[in-house]
Amino acid sequence: MKAEVYFTWGEVNEALVDKRTVVVMDVIRATTVIVEALANGARGIFPTESTDEAARLASSLGREETLLCGERRGLKPEGFDLGNSPAEFTPEVVEGKQLIMSTTNGTRALLAAEDASRVLVGAFLNLSAVAEAVGGEENLVLLCAGKDQHFALEDALCAGALLMMLTREREDLTLNDAARVALDLARRYPITADTLRSTSAGEALTELGLERDLELCASVDRHAVVPEMKERRVYLPNPRKRSQGSGRRTP
Amino acid sequence: MKAEVYFTWGEVNEALVDKRTVVVMDVIRATTVIVEALANGARGIFPTESTDEAARLASSLGREETLLCGERRGLKPEGFDLGNSPAEFTPEVVEGKQLIMSTTNGTRALLAAEDASRVLVGAFLNLSAVAEAVGGEENLVLLCAGKDQHFALEDALCAGALLMMLTREREDLTLNDAARVALDLARRYPITADTLRSTSAGEALTELGLERDLELCASVDRHAVVPEMKERRVYLPNPRKRSQGSGRRTP
Repeated sequence: MKAEVYFTWGEVNEALVDKRTVVVMDVIRATTVIVEALANGARGIFPTESTDEAARLASSLGREETLLCGERRGLKPEGFDLGNSPAEFTPEVVEGKQLIMSTTNGTRALLAAEDASRVLVGAFLNLSAVAEAVGGEENLVLLCAGKDQHFALEDALCAGALLMMLTREREDLTLNDAARVALDLARRYPITADTLRSTSAGEALTELGLERDLELCASVDRHAVVPEMKERRVYLPNPRKRSQGSGRRTP
Repeated sequence: MKAEVYFTWGEVNEALVDKRTVVVMDVIRATTVIVEALANGARGIFPTESTDEAARLASSLGREETLLCGERRGLKPEGFDLGNSPAEFTPEVVEGKQLIMSTTNGTRALLAAEDASRVLVGAFLNLSAVAEAVGGEENLVLLCAGKDQHFALEDALCAGALLMMLTREREDLTLNDAARVALDLARRYPITADTLRSTSAGEALTELGLERDLELCASVDRHAVVPEMKERRVYLPNPRKRSQGSGRRTP
């Protein structure tokens, strides 16, 4: 398997993702939120590039079945239903809803990957499920969202943790420089809220009083789901794989 | 000191370098070449964005005192005098000459930094001299050129090695995520031609038959010079600091 990591969404283009499976990671917090929301019964999530586009899409889909969610500078934009704290996305709130999401880095990373043959969503929350889903790939791209176009340690650690799992299954991994570094970092940093707190994104969140989000962001394998994006909508292709205890009733 | 590392030239803009000293690093091979050439007596180096711009500038400066140098895909462009192997830049070849340089990553990184208050050129070749030059800064940016807009391990190691030197002098370093990772990597990878050979850029160079360049690229503190860029020209502000043994005679 050839596994390439990119540390920022800005550095990928169509040629780099073409005919590849791409796993998009934005641990703090967009992809954590996506995994949590879908595992808790949301029907689908539409990533959008701007808050304006999000509002327009909400109008066209109908406001009753949709929730606007996301952040700008870490906080809920005006007029939005939910912010970007994973704990907001409980079964009571999201079950059966379509979510329209606009965040600074994560949703842009998803859209940057949209020309890939398969776009999956990864976070510490669903690490083993993603590793299982991509274990048979020959060309894998792990796209870290990064922070404002720069390297973000937490996303590199998530990519590295996924590579650690893959190295246990396969001996034929070929890594680019970034993948090599991500794997190296993951082998030495524990996945804990403290580790996340020490990152630039974790510090920013702590300053906003949202530090408790980090506990949930660091919850490895909380859900056995693998969200996939098709035609700009993220959903669970195989809802039977939804984790136990997510509170979602079978429809 | 606040020290920020950026892993690719594409992610910096005027605001990020404004009022800061920026050290640009492209170990394989542009900044290695710049240090070597200036230490060996070149009068100045003009980084240019394209081979066309390089050719035009050479015509306007006069071809007799100038040398066109650089690479595309690792090799000397047609019509150029020199490629991008540091060993080509001997005193016999470069003394007293103006060099016009066009490379894929390094010269673009220099130009990306041009709005900084001070732009310095770093490589393993002049690590201690650069560390001494920036030791008193309050806001330092280490700009890794990277490879084709992606993370390059050798540049991260060079930035980290510089940070290691600075941590010995100062206890007040504040690091961004990338700086933290660069420092962490530098503490564990030896600076050798073997390490460089294992990187993506080193592998590409080896495939081109230019592997021996890596020995020179890994020569720590070969020269005690700190090239600086002003108005798109890189030169030595203090030529008396030129290293011994560079073969250059005092003018």
